[in-house]
Amino acid sequence: MEYSKFHTLDLVVDPFNTDFAKRWSWMALGKTLLNAAEQHAKARGFGMYDVNSENFTWVLSRLCIDIYEMPVVWEEVHVTTWIENIYRLFTNRNFSIKGNDGKVYGYARSIWALIDYNTRDPQNLEQLYGNDFTRFLAPEEPCPILKQGRVHPLKDSDWIKDIEAEYSDIDLNGHVNSIKYIEHIMDLYPLKSYENGRNLKRIEIAYMAESYYSDKLSLYKRTLDESTSEVEVRGNEPLVRCKLQFSI
Amino acid sequence: MEYSKFHTLDLVVDPFNTDFAKRWSWMALGKTLLNAAEQHAKARGFGMYDVNSENFTWVLSRLCIDIYEMPVVWEEVHVTTWIENIYRLFTNRNFSIKGNDGKVYGYARSIWALIDYNTRDPQNLEQLYGNDFTRFLAPEEPCPILKQGRVHPLKDSDWIKDIEAEYSDIDLNGHVNSIKYIEHIMDLYPLKSYENGRNLKRIEIAYMAESYYSDKLSLYKRTLDESTSEVEVRGNEPLVRCKLQFSI
Repeated sequence: MEYSKFHTLDLVVDPFNTDFAKRWSWMALGKTLLNAAEQHAKARGFGMYDVNSENFTWVLSRLCIDIYEMPVVWEEVHVTTWIENIYRLFTNRNFSIKGNDGKVYGYARSIWALIDYNTRDPQNLEQLYGNDFTRFLAPEEPCPILKQGRVHPLKDSDWIKDIEAEYSDIDLNGHVNSIKYIEHIMDLYPLKSYENGRNLKRIEIAYMAESYYSDKLSLYKRTLDESTSEVEVRGNEPLVRCKLQFSI
Repeated sequence: MEYSKFHTLDLVVDPFNTDFAKRWSWMALGKTLLNAAEQHAKARGFGMYDVNSENFTWVLSRLCIDIYEMPVVWEEVHVTTWIENIYRLFTNRNFSIKGNDGKVYGYARSIWALIDYNTRDPQNLEQLYGNDFTRFLAPEEPCPILKQGRVHPLKDSDWIKDIEAEYSDIDLNGHVNSIKYIEHIMDLYPLKSYENGRNLKRIEIAYMAESYYSDKLSLYKRTLDESTSEVEVRGNEPLVRCKLQFSI
């Protein structure tokens, strides 16, 4: 059976998935990326329910999103995803975020591992499914954004506030949702960071450990320069480290 | 020109718009109701941008949602909206939430006013647009759920916590989003309120005043019986009062 290497979600930016500036919200964008990834994988036999049935689960390890311009309310958006490559213990999945007539809003890169549900051991992707993944690889497809760099640990003195993981933070995997972290992180910045054409233009996130309902999440922030800062979310251990770049 | 009185949004419950129990989230449901309302109005010439251009704005005053069963991940949902009636200063808009083969997930009722953007005065809907609204009315369409009752003011001693309105709370109207209040309200309940088949089955909300970025929102909660409770959100004045009924 022949499969396309690509899967595209088409949508319209609806008014209740925008921010105050009428731009598509990063939360809605992030959910759409994960949803496109899941639909792509599901249609090819390795979606979350397929791998769950073998006691595996996909874990998002890195996510990096570059947005040149965020679509605004009522604009049409086409999010395409493909797998760039498979390595022994992880796989790279990329995304393009486009409008009509080929207009480019941005790109995203992500890195995933497949772990055993019980032992949490990462699986050797090159040996799974009879090396079935390889026929879906599209390494030639351009994703012209920088790969993500490393975010160093933040200091105790960078502490901003603690929050508690609540009902709305938990997703169907039973832990704090990857995208909900972005919401908490973006809420650390004042509204004026997003006003008058200012916007978040790049976010690089390393997901290091999972957190659960009622966990205390401590948020740390360090400003590097006028446009760049780093955030760490800590529970008993570092959970998420990320770097944000704003247009100024 | 002939218009249908009804507008339907068709969607699939995607995995990142569910809660931990794999049910469609109330936030995603609520946004879909508002989006269906806006699309219905927009297609008939009285959407938010149409009325904004005349210095008016639609204000959601009451929202009541009854859910018999929440659709789960990958289920198809069809949300239909219509206007039940127009009165001098407000209009009733209803919704059905259905699955395939006529399966009924629930219904919703809402009440809206059209106010002057500057004076905040409600407009006489019976005289606007040459009484144009009346041809869209569908009072005969059943919406077999109770109309919402009154929620009495809560006491100072019912105080639970304060939160601050952050970037992600603010929608394109510049104030705290109507549906985001539902998220904050649902987060007042422990995860076990939503576990093992328990779920929120009815919510009645009165939107009394608007709140803005960086406002302090104080949350009050009163338990009436094992399944029923009331929540009030206060700023300098009461902003939202609501009653929640859980299945037990």
